[in-house]
Parts: sequence; structure tokens; C-alpha cells
Amino acid sequence: MAAMTRIVECVPNFSEGRDLGKIEKIVAPFRGREGVKLLDYQRDEDHNRCVVTLVGEPEALAAAVLEAMAAALAAIDMRTHTGQHPRMGAVDVVPFIPVKNVTMKDAIDLSRRVAATAAQTLGLPVFLYEDSATAPHRRNLADIRKGQFEGMAEKVTLPEWKPDFGPAGIHPTAGVTAVGARMPLVAYNVNLGTPDLEIANDIARKVRHLSGGLRYCKAIGIELKERGIVQVSINMTDYTRTALYRVFELIRIEARRWGVPVVGSEIVGLVPMAALIDSAAYYLQLENFKSEQVLESRIYE
Amino acid sequence: MAAMTRIVECVPNFSEGRDLGKIEKIVAPFRGREGVKLLDYQRDEDHNRCVVTLVGEPEALAAAVLEAMAAALAAIDMRTHTGQHPRMGAVDVVPFIPVKNVTMKDAIDLSRRVAATAAQTLGLPVFLYEDSATAPHRRNLADIRKGQFEGMAEKVTLPEWKPDFGPAGIHPTAGVTAVGARMPLVAYNVNLGTPDLEIANDIARKVRHLSGGLRYCKAIGIELKERGIVQVSINMTDYTRTALYRVFELIRIEARRWGVPVVGSEIVGLVPMAALIDSAAYYLQLENFKSEQVLESRIYE
Repeated sequence: MAAMTRIVECVPNFSEGRDLGKIEKIVAPFRGREGVKLLDYQRDEDHNRCVVTLVGEPEALAAAVLEAMAAALAAIDMRTHTGQHPRMGAVDVVPFIPVKNVTMKDAIDLSRRVAATAAQTLGLPVFLYEDSATAPHRRNLADIRKGQFEGMAEKVTLPEWKPDFGPAGIHPTAGVTAVGARMPLVAYNVNLGTPDLEIANDIARKVRHLSGGLRYCKAIGIELKERGIVQVSINMTDYTRTALYRVFELIRIEARRWGVPVVGSEIVGLVPMAALIDSAAYYLQLENFKSEQVLESRIYE
Repeated sequence: MAAMTRIVECVPNFSEGRDLGKIEKIVAPFRGREGVKLLDYQRDEDHNRCVVTLVGEPEALAAAVLEAMAAALAAIDMRTHTGQHPRMGAVDVVPFIPVKNVTMKDAIDLSRRVAATAAQTLGLPVFLYEDSATAPHRRNLADIRKGQFEGMAEKVTLPEWKPDFGPAGIHPTAGVTAVGARMPLVAYNVNLGTPDLEIANDIARKVRHLSGGLRYCKAIGIELKERGIVQVSINMTDYTRTALYRVFELIRIEARRWGVPVVGSEIVGLVPMAALIDSAAYYLQLENFKSEQVLESRIYE
């Protein structure tokens, strides 16, 4: 495959996690395609949902995603869909994430083109969300999805919930879809040497944006029962503005009040190289370091 | 260019730093070539030397390097060469460095093939050095190069300095060449908040392998006169075994004895991604982190 000079990541979520034949039809447009690389797809039977991770050149990626959306509409009937995860459509959500030589504005433009084309060619009502949202109350996916598939036919008749593209009513079998641009999420957890969940919850409240903490940090406390410890489970929503090391050190500072040690941390899934290099540069007190000094960034530029 | 699945880096040093026409002829084989990417070349007029950095698939890289060696032999006459940097041949040294999906043994095998072919097709005497060396006294390039071009005709007649490949005498105009495999070097400096050079020298002695310190660490003290501070200037010869953060923290510990702060550090030139991620993982106490979790490593695999 030719090296990609501009890279966008896309993590579409489809509401099918049980029928392997259907899932294969949905991901088929991502295989063996110039300018697109399928990195991963994971299905969950309980959630009845499949999460795909792919990267590609903006235009090639958009074309592949639109094909997969059409395949999902052909394969999935939301009227008979059951599953634990909240969902509102056959193609539930399609986030575009700038990775390389692509600005957030580029990713927003791309998400709008995909949303408009999906509405036009598939008759699908589409909400723009996150950085692509057209109003503040539409930024948060959970707010858009509230009511789920079953409540959506009524919800989209409300003026404040008119879809950004496509028909004012839902698609009969595919519901509605959210398409948008966002920064990469980093799932980052910090483990505390105590079995006391209240301590993890207390620290989560102090470091997260919602209750007075760091701007791009969501956090809750959870128990790791088999290890007999607790964890501050974090979603970093913009590591370029709220750095991993800053959350880590802030948790360490808060844990001191309880005399509790930080016993480790973990990154779940994928993380952009820059998020870790940023932390290395902080601790090593690196002066004037440029990401172009990373050998791998030169090889693939 | 097609994505490279196996990557070796090569940093050949040629004894020409003044004549741009000759330099262009030497680097020409690295341009526009499938499976090879020229990252950088820097010439120094005082040293009269040109250092090229390139990466490539093993076989494509070897073919390109052999062509450049032939071009250097045609362009350079060592009998009239002057320059400040020690040198023993027109193609002074050719190190191969494993970068991706290539073991050190693969890089050693590659260096031996290039050495044997250069000896056979160019009539060039070649020493294998570093990890490719055939005897302990031939590992260190400085030991091989001692006597320089002018002393080499006599040196290679000694049994312990018989070249590994090629004629027993020197090439009349190109001298001799060292070819070998080695780990990536990381040039890493730690700055101390004092103008006292003796403190930097003392700390350098304590952290470097030569005088009792860390195995894969070379270090000297130097003055940064314009900043009024001193620096421990380090060459990390195997960051996979002697980690950057370990040297950094050891220097901090030694600096305490003098009541001197570590004011920063710097990486000069290129550094493999893994060297920085390793340090991030140490400071963030990352559990079970795998390099495959780095998004960029997945895109280019």
C-alpha cells in the first residue's frame, strides 16, 4: 500500500454484534482498499454492537465509510435490535479523528460531507456532534442518543432535535446516526493501593472537569476486585490540552491526603505517540524537543 | 512509495565535505529508489566529511549503499584528502542499525554481505566492527581507525589487523572501510545549573561505563559558556538496555551531592520512538503497556 501523507482515523459503531456474516458485510468496504487501513474491529454480543477502527486518507476514508454505512443499513433492522449498550441507529455513531497533516477543521469538513452524502444517498437523518455540532446542546453524544431508537421518532419532531441533514423523521429500519469530528480519546486508568472505593471516587471527583478538575478529563472510581485495589478510570478527551502526566501527578497529590500510594497506571487500547512523548519530555525536562526528532516520524513522513 | 515492512537504518560516512558535485554523485543512488528513503545528509567542510542517514528494506538498502560506495571510490582520492575528523577511507564507515522487524542478527548478516560484496566488486579491504566484529579488539571503530589513512598501508600487514574481507593491502585511493551492525545511538545531554565544569566531569565519570557507571553510556562534561552552565554530554549506545530515564535520574542523584539542580536535558538529532516511550512508561508507572498500543505503530505496520 502507498504511504499515506494525510491521515484521519474513524471509529464507526454499528448496531450488530452477533451475526458474523452481517458484520463481515459491513467491514468488507474497509478491506484491500487503496488509502484505507482497517486496524481493528471488535464485536460484543451483550452490547450487540461492533466497533471498527480504521485510518485513511480523508477522501478514500469517506468513500469507504459511506459504503459500510450502506451495507449496515441493508443488514440491520433496528426494530428487532436488542442490546445492553444505548443505541439510536444501525450506524450508531461515526467519529472522525485528525491524526496526521489534518487539522480539526479538515476533520469537521470531512464529517459534514459524509453526513450530507449519507442523508442524500441513504435517506438517513444525521446529527452532527462533538466538534462538528451546530449547537451546544448537540455536542454530547449521550444527549443526542437519549431516548434511544425507540424514542427517536418522536424526539426528531422537536425543533431543537431536528436532524442536521436528511429527513425530519427517522429511517424506518436504521433510525438516526451521529457523525462528527473529535480529538482522539485516551482511556487512561490510575491504580491506587487501597480497597476503598470511596477514595477512588473522591479523587475522580477532584480531577475531572465535571466537578472542578481538569478541562479534558472525565473520571470515575471503580473497584478491581481480584487485585483488592481501586482505580481512577479516566477518559482523556484532548491529550494535547490536558496532558497525561498532569492527571497522573494530580491524582498522586490527592492520594497523599489519604496516605494511599499510586501503584501503577494503564492505557487501554490505542494511544497517539505524541501523548506519551509529551509525558517523557516533561519528566526528562527535555529542552526544545521536536516530534520530527522521532526516527519513526521521519521514516513515514 | 510502498510502506516498508522491514526497516534497517544506515548512516554511511564519506570522506568528502567540500565538493558539492561529488557529494551529489555519492548520494544519487539513495534518491527515488523503491524501498529506500534518504532522511538526511550533512557535510562538514572542516571535517571534509559527509554523513548520510537513510532507511530501507534490507536488500534494497544494501544495493543502494553498494552503489554509493562505488560512486565514492570514483569521486574521492584519499591521497590528497585533508580534514579535521579522523578517517581511514573514502567510504570511512558504514553502520547498519536494526529499526523495525529486523533483529540484530539480521543487521549483522546484512553488514557481512555488504562487506563481502564491496571487497569483491570494488577491491576494497573491509573491517567488520561493532556487533559484526570478528574479534574483541575490532569492535571499537576508533581502534580500527587508529593510524588513519596515512598509517593504514602498514597497519593492515599486521596479522591482528588483517582486513576481514578483500585484499591484504589498502585500496590505493580509497584506503579501507569499516562495515558493521550496531544499535541506534542516542545523543542525550543533561544540563546542570552551575558554571563549574569540574562538577559535570565528576558526574560524567560516575555515570559512564568506562569508569564504573552504566553499561551502555559514554559521557563527558562540557561547558555551555553562553548560558553560564555545564552539561553532561552523553552517548547512549544501547537504549534498550541502558534507559534514558535511568541515566537522567542517576545524574540527578549525583548532582545532589553538589547541591546543583538539573535544569534540563536535550536529545540531539534523531531518537527511536521506543526510547522515549520507555521513559514515559517508567514515570507514569504504566502496567502491561505494549508498543502495539501506539496508534502510529499500527498505521505503519
